[in-house]
Amino acid sequence: MNNGNPHIVIIGAGFAGLWAVRTLSGKNVQVTLIDKNNYHTFLPLLYQVGAAEIEPEGIAYPIRSLIRKYSNIKYLRSEVSDLDLDSKTLIANGRKISFDYCIIATGCTTNFFGIPGAESVCFKLKTLDDAVIIRNHILTCFERAAFCTGIERQNSLLTFTIVGGGPTGVEFAGALAELLYGPMRKDYPEYDINKARIVLIESSSRLLGMLPDALSSYTLKKLQSLGVEVMLETSVENITPMGVKIKEGATVESETILWCAGVKGPVEASGWRIPLAKDGRITVSEDLRIKDYENVYAAGDAAWFEFNGKPLPQTAPVAIQQGVMAAENILRQIKGSQTLPFRFVDKGAMVTIGRNSAVANFAGMKFKGFFAWIIWLVIHLTNLIGFRNKIIVLINWSIDYFLFERAVRLILPSCCNEPGFVSCLRRRRDKQ
Amino acid sequence: MNNGNPHIVIIGAGFAGLWAVRTLSGKNVQVTLIDKNNYHTFLPLLYQVGAAEIEPEGIAYPIRSLIRKYSNIKYLRSEVSDLDLDSKTLIANGRKISFDYCIIATGCTTNFFGIPGAESVCFKLKTLDDAVIIRNHILTCFERAAFCTGIERQNSLLTFTIVGGGPTGVEFAGALAELLYGPMRKDYPEYDINKARIVLIESSSRLLGMLPDALSSYTLKKLQSLGVEVMLETSVENITPMGVKIKEGATVESETILWCAGVKGPVEASGWRIPLAKDGRITVSEDLRIKDYENVYAAGDAAWFEFNGKPLPQTAPVAIQQGVMAAENILRQIKGSQTLPFRFVDKGAMVTIGRNSAVANFAGMKFKGFFAWIIWLVIHLTNLIGFRNKIIVLINWSIDYFLFERAVRLILPSCCNEPGFVSCLRRRRDKQ
Repeated sequence: MNNGNPHIVIIGAGFAGLWAVRTLSGKNVQVTLIDKNNYHTFLPLLYQVGAAEIEPEGIAYPIRSLIRKYSNIKYLRSEVSDLDLDSKTLIANGRKISFDYCIIATGCTTNFFGIPGAESVCFKLKTLDDAVIIRNHILTCFERAAFCTGIERQNSLLTFTIVGGGPTGVEFAGALAELLYGPMRKDYPEYDINKARIVLIESSSRLLGMLPDALSSYTLKKLQSLGVEVMLETSVENITPMGVKIKEGATVESETILWCAGVKGPVEASGWRIPLAKDGRITVSEDLRIKDYENVYAAGDAAWFEFNGKPLPQTAPVAIQQGVMAAENILRQIKGSQTLPFRFVDKGAMVTIGRNSAVANFAGMKFKGFFAWIIWLVIHLTNLIGFRNKIIVLINWSIDYFLFERAVRLILPSCCNEPGFVSCLRRRRDKQ
Repeated sequence: MNNGNPHIVIIGAGFAGLWAVRTLSGKNVQVTLIDKNNYHTFLPLLYQVGAAEIEPEGIAYPIRSLIRKYSNIKYLRSEVSDLDLDSKTLIANGRKISFDYCIIATGCTTNFFGIPGAESVCFKLKTLDDAVIIRNHILTCFERAAFCTGIERQNSLLTFTIVGGGPTGVEFAGALAELLYGPMRKDYPEYDINKARIVLIESSSRLLGMLPDALSSYTLKKLQSLGVEVMLETSVENITPMGVKIKEGATVESETILWCAGVKGPVEASGWRIPLAKDGRITVSEDLRIKDYENVYAAGDAAWFEFNGKPLPQTAPVAIQQGVMAAENILRQIKGSQTLPFRFVDKGAMVTIGRNSAVANFAGMKFKGFFAWIIWLVIHLTNLIGFRNKIIVLINWSIDYFLFERAVRLILPSCCNEPGFVSCLRRRRDKQ
């Protein structure tokens, strides 16, 4: 392995990790990219997997195929069970690995804010496994409702609750509404699909808090017109397997509760004796390095980077730019130059709501409706990694758009919907 | 539910069940189609899912979309926990359902013939879950081998053993060889991919026993040229997690053993107090009815139909023709006419070996090589259910053929490779 070139370890093959790899490819360094999954996930389309619009294979790409052309990059499929910044070593697959530089790009996890019952009951939408599990669960609810004789149980099976009115909550609510009141309507003669409810709960006074007011109002109206019940200024008191208890209010009885109300730093980081912000993200200095460790960087969702007193949002553009910058700074260090401070080039934000409608905010210019939606489509399709995946996603979108059909309504693997499977996943996560 | 029309229950939405449904659609009968999965699986391409060539979503189609246009057909997602032919009732999802006529089309399961260790150690390839599990396992073996330092362990990880030289064993061996010595070669700089072995074990003196000798010899030569080690006249003594012990011979050390050596009747049938053949299939009379039960039929892989003293093979054409005939005979019974005897129209058999090569036997005419392969492609693509699926499969095939690439090399869902997941599935199966 050692040919005299500095050894850089990158933990995580998300946007930050992958763009760091690209920046370091062909340079006089050896890179080991570590990820527990053998694929990169295009997270911006994850909600569409959850809403049975595209298959998981459409947004996943094998890491080894991505790095194949770079001879100085190696991939290691492993979790990182320990990271010791002082001795510059980590443990992967039970073996100690030394490095000269390290980029931590392990992403983030769901933050349940200690709401009672939330972590044990709610579904999440952070990984491809999560998306398959929620898809299978929703489709199973429809099947169970078709066989159910008790009206209350049927109502609860057909009530889908989403907590959190940020981009993920809004996009998922829109996609779910189009699934329910579109393809599902034709397929369940057993009951009136109009009974099905989608409830979106947001604690603040508007949806998509990071966008201007006008776009939030448009989003609200659009979601309502799709059939989503939006509850603003509504806080969750606790969650049980039967539903969501609202503070000073009633209970939304629902067997499907998706938690999109917040994220926090990566779980693993808490065991790594590194400085963390209050939400568990890794505090980084201006050049993305971790305080007191001059060879260790954090980038992307895992990093807490303050700008004008606020942390940067956990989005793909931030992750991509930070991944590139962390890699460039390492190259500068190797050459003996000064590291440069990270400056985020904000190209704006966009969120899709449904068919023909999205909202976007580019450099202060606001767009909404069909034009924003077309922009959203083009940007996501061009950025999706892999030629095959672009075609697969485009086919699914076309079938959805022109035929009002979603073909991936499959409860598959069948086991992914069993209580045993979820607890498998939990155990696995706990091990990390 | 009851509008006076006779109620027909069809158990199983495979080829037999689905073609029975089509035959009964629009007729003056009510049909309930029961299947534990909400999709139909196109089993002839299952081995390609196992070999990471196409995604599982490419060969699965939602049952409700298939029956949507037929108002007299209902779908029920359930296992059948009890079937009582005397009282004409069954238990589905814990509830009793009565019927006037029933078609049992529950398919078949793997037959391990009591070989010690086979059932607990071997992978199977009968369901879409099986295919995802073997795909994930094979890809994981490659990742483990990349990190492995012990030469013996690495050899064992890179040895893939297939027991059974029938169509499934041959097709999977060929597809696996093209995966290993094609795309995988480029992606594992950690070791020489030529170390990887594919061993195909067959107890008789030739492969594809149902085809003429000349095609068997061609298949043998072709597989060998792809790099598959074929062991003919070789019987398995026992199987351990470390490998396959050959009778009067050495052990093939291998962490992947796929059992394709035989099938038997559906597990459920043994609890249903119906006449079974010695392999557990349901014995049917000439008109596909079960002896002593004039309103109950069995069709497809689940049925033991003797013709010239031998049972018909368990193939898609037999299942389709029997499904249609069972349904037609029920319609005849309802009209008060005589049932007709089933006559299998044998259009021949075909097996693909790999790129540009297949063997086929149509009405005594033998085909092999490129022409047979093209016929195979066209027949499978046209018979695959669902326009979207045809496109998805065609795209994957094209990428595989022209770019020597398989994009679905994803260990996904990540949990499907955990011991806990497999035991989940086992528990689930045992419950049936």
